[in-house]
Amino acid sequence: MNFKELVMSRYATKKFNGKPLPHAHVDELLDLIRYAPSSFNLQPWKIKIISDQQTKDVLFPASWNQEQIRTASHVLVFCANTDLAAVAKKLESAMLLAGVPKESVTALMGYITPFIAGMNDAQKLAWAQRQTYLALENGLLGAKFLGFDSCPMEGFDPAAYTKILNLPKNLIPTAVMPIGYAADEQRPKIRFSKEDIFF
Amino acid sequence: MNFKELVMSRYATKKFNGKPLPHAHVDELLDLIRYAPSSFNLQPWKIKIISDQQTKDVLFPASWNQEQIRTASHVLVFCANTDLAAVAKKLESAMLLAGVPKESVTALMGYITPFIAGMNDAQKLAWAQRQTYLALENGLLGAKFLGFDSCPMEGFDPAAYTKILNLPKNLIPTAVMPIGYAADEQRPKIRFSKEDIFF
Repeated sequence: MNFKELVMSRYATKKFNGKPLPHAHVDELLDLIRYAPSSFNLQPWKIKIISDQQTKDVLFPASWNQEQIRTASHVLVFCANTDLAAVAKKLESAMLLAGVPKESVTALMGYITPFIAGMNDAQKLAWAQRQTYLALENGLLGAKFLGFDSCPMEGFDPAAYTKILNLPKNLIPTAVMPIGYAADEQRPKIRFSKEDIFF
Repeated sequence: MNFKELVMSRYATKKFNGKPLPHAHVDELLDLIRYAPSSFNLQPWKIKIISDQQTKDVLFPASWNQEQIRTASHVLVFCANTDLAAVAKKLESAMLLAGVPKESVTALMGYITPFIAGMNDAQKLAWAQRQTYLALENGLLGAKFLGFDSCPMEGFDPAAYTKILNLPKNLIPTAVMPIGYAADEQRPKIRFSKEDIFF
């Protein structure tokens, strides 16, 4: 499928058939997610992967009893990572390790440090969550590219997820993406017209 | 190019060659953006398209003097649409027009109305901005699919953009995407390791 076909055939799968995905396919999906862009390349996200049925069953009632959670092969919980000072430090190390000249890294950090310092906690969270949606879209399209299905979900209880998954304070569950093989059918896509959206 | 190749070859182009994109290609890109997913399918975004050089030149100093703004063929300004009551109403009409049964539409609106009512202004903005990044990622990958380049940008002054583009109060410039043909080279991608991101 080309990109246009992926965009048009991806849909929010409401029920999966429970069949497990091959490990290699999930692994390829993780790379497609990992290479998403983000502002300053800070990659302020962490993604929890759940494949055991017991945890999926526990998450089900914390997800408005939506069947896609317990019928999926894997459930990916996209968390915004609000510890931006730590991700900046990690980026600095990764750039130096990749051989980027020290002056260039220092110059970039000269932009990043005040950018982070200029945000309050709510702004940091909102900013990290926005970036996370770039990675989410790669995941949604990537699943279809790899021959399976997905569902983007905001309909879940982040506080319950935090407790069930024992997440550290800096990781905020922001979107959930169950993946697997669809057991439902795509419905026609409804979108606002070009004239409505572009100006 | 397949999806993986798009993900790996797309990059934040810092300088374009100024050559205009064919109208048909830009038009195809708009469809790829328009069909992005969003929570409840509310599509809370509007995108301003700028192709005249004079406006690009005026936006240049409001964009930290970044060359990609004035060397691009087109500049797309992704705005979060914070008038969620209006988008909900528009979605309701679009669904009925598409032949979705009235009961189903009413049931969906029964979720959407309290969801919107439950957010304060800051939450509405943050939520709409998150959704906008799904559309942005379609744009970035879609440009590469159609044979040209793009740059995702947060480095601009939203207040200055609002004034220059005379944007209504409900549209908040959130990300800018200049598009065109690259006049620079892609550098190696640096990303955190799988072990760092997935758990």
